[in-house]
Amino acid sequence: MEVDPSIAAEAEAAARRSEEAAEAFFRAAPPLRDRDRVAASVADFVARHSAGKWPPRSLTSPPCSHPSGSSDAGGPAGVICITSGGTTVPLEQRCVRYIDNFASGQRGAAATEYTHIPRPLVFACHRSACCLELSVAKCRYFVKAGYAVIFIHRRGSKQPYCRFLPEDSFLDLFELGEDSEIQVPQFHSAVVKAAISNYRKAIDEGLLLKLPFTTIFEYLQLLQMVATSMNCLGHRGMFFLAAAVSDFYVPWESMAKHKIESAVGPLNMQLNQVPKMLFILRKYWAPSAFCVSFKLETDPNILLQKAEMALKKYGMNVVVANELANYKDVVVMVTSSGRTTVSRSSKEEDLEEQLTELLVKMHSEHIRQPGSEDR
Amino acid sequence: MEVDPSIAAEAEAAARRSEEAAEAFFRAAPPLRDRDRVAASVADFVARHSAGKWPPRSLTSPPCSHPSGSSDAGGPAGVICITSGGTTVPLEQRCVRYIDNFASGQRGAAATEYTHIPRPLVFACHRSACCLELSVAKCRYFVKAGYAVIFIHRRGSKQPYCRFLPEDSFLDLFELGEDSEIQVPQFHSAVVKAAISNYRKAIDEGLLLKLPFTTIFEYLQLLQMVATSMNCLGHRGMFFLAAAVSDFYVPWESMAKHKIESAVGPLNMQLNQVPKMLFILRKYWAPSAFCVSFKLETDPNILLQKAEMALKKYGMNVVVANELANYKDVVVMVTSSGRTTVSRSSKEEDLEEQLTELLVKMHSEHIRQPGSEDR
Repeated sequence: MEVDPSIAAEAEAAARRSEEAAEAFFRAAPPLRDRDRVAASVADFVARHSAGKWPPRSLTSPPCSHPSGSSDAGGPAGVICITSGGTTVPLEQRCVRYIDNFASGQRGAAATEYTHIPRPLVFACHRSACCLELSVAKCRYFVKAGYAVIFIHRRGSKQPYCRFLPEDSFLDLFELGEDSEIQVPQFHSAVVKAAISNYRKAIDEGLLLKLPFTTIFEYLQLLQMVATSMNCLGHRGMFFLAAAVSDFYVPWESMAKHKIESAVGPLNMQLNQVPKMLFILRKYWAPSAFCVSFKLETDPNILLQKAEMALKKYGMNVVVANELANYKDVVVMVTSSGRTTVSRSSKEEDLEEQLTELLVKMHSEHIRQPGSEDR
Repeated sequence: MEVDPSIAAEAEAAARRSEEAAEAFFRAAPPLRDRDRVAASVADFVARHSAGKWPPRSLTSPPCSHPSGSSDAGGPAGVICITSGGTTVPLEQRCVRYIDNFASGQRGAAATEYTHIPRPLVFACHRSACCLELSVAKCRYFVKAGYAVIFIHRRGSKQPYCRFLPEDSFLDLFELGEDSEIQVPQFHSAVVKAAISNYRKAIDEGLLLKLPFTTIFEYLQLLQMVATSMNCLGHRGMFFLAAAVSDFYVPWESMAKHKIESAVGPLNMQLNQVPKMLFILRKYWAPSAFCVSFKLETDPNILLQKAEMALKKYGMNVVVANELANYKDVVVMVTSSGRTTVSRSSKEEDLEEQLTELLVKMHSEHIRQPGSEDR
């Protein structure tokens, strides 16, 4: 099918505007503190995990000789960049006031835990003709799915393995025994011990790299750094972009230097749009990666339509649509092949368990699709 | 001295405008969740501590018969309301975006710890003629100064007794022993144990009531509730208003209902001034209390002048002036009798130790001033 030349020209012009806006944003942003040290830790983390074996050996031998249910350890399934929490937009250069986005960081922290877990994963095999003759249930592989996670998170937001903690005082969880040894009251004990043990395991096995941000400037510089580093992973890289990223900002050079005076009546502000970096990520930073972004709205009437638009406009593999009123209970995964609703059946469950299971399965299929270097 | 009637009329009109603005603010604010339960806990806390003996018995007997250096237990020295952390201003009713104020909550959390400590306090005696014949150094009383603290704090901000914790993961402090008992690595052990022990003590002795807020609407309703409850304490009540309170807000009724659309170009916002509640607190809520407020600026050239203005305009007893660049190292206490600079000599010290010591001393004098019911 031929594309109307005027539409193609318009799309190209829009892409160029996005690129120019992104360049201008980074040029004017205050530089990331400790940039070199952070970049080295990211490069080291990616290099360590790019050596992970993928696909596991069983996938490269004739599939149907393997009974379903066999397991294969392999290396970590891949590297996932999870972003979490809201970015801030400073209103003053010596920042006292800023615009913030609601985001507890719950989604990203939970996803980190569930992608860390090595568990049998089920996915359909598209490679062998023999599959056509077998029931889908039989033609599956079981592989381990422990991902190495780069967790780009807002300072002070929810952290993996301690999401259950009381919001304002961890000291409420502890007491001192008679010999002043630290004790955890019985009814908390199992959950605290599991948290310490799981967290230690993730750290000791080198499966977690935590990178904190506060402002939109820090966040986008970190995302750029991580994405360009992960580009070498090709299809094995995955992005789970759950951070609530500011849509509007005050460019650094046009920002008030000092605290805005409060005594002079109402305050008028004009904010610019933040360049749409998902587009840049997909086009330049990590074109082969599996990209999952999130769309949060308060109005259910426009949510799915906006998610569909983001899917096409930014070339995402999945857009997870969620509403502020019930984002913990239900989400809709929007892909080019349709919509899948994921919901939890009780308040005790984490929706992220199912969500990450489905996404990891889709990522496995992405790795094995035509054109993948790991196919 | 006679006051120019036109100036007096103008001051009265300004006061009336403040009152009307405050009334309008509270009328339109979304009501505090759990208001009745919170109000009951505040009333109970204040009632328990209003029975504390003040002044300690030694102060009511002839002072000079007491050698300096004697101590007197008494009840808690008083009740202090400490506010801490920044308030947010929602930009949408179903809030995704909000304006926030920079404030870690470090100042208020540290002040809570230092005002809790029962310690000998030194203050000059103004009651007995005999004092005139003695050196000031000899005519002093030593009393215990453990305050009961109502800690109105921003959710997620620094908390008393665990300010030293790693910002994003308390789990880094712990490990599991061989029998999966919880252990603290040696080099952290003393500080973690002290934290648990001091925190437990404050809670067990009923000396700490924690009230969390996020928005400006929650904060001001809590402050009103606490201040009017503490009014019965008269001069014995103290306010340490370290919270970073928004100067501008969007009135609830004129706020966008849904998330503001990002696709339609730059965003223009007009924000109203938040009514100056310090004036209302001093005039109506707790007129006899000892009030300490804070002035934070980024421009040192206007800081002290603005602190002086706040002292007069709102009738504060002390305004603590601090600059964003060095607020942990130095502050200036501005009072009607002059300025006192308080600074720390090393990064290991908490400025709040000296600051609270000076303030508690001034509060003692406030209690004993002409007109005080506890004189």
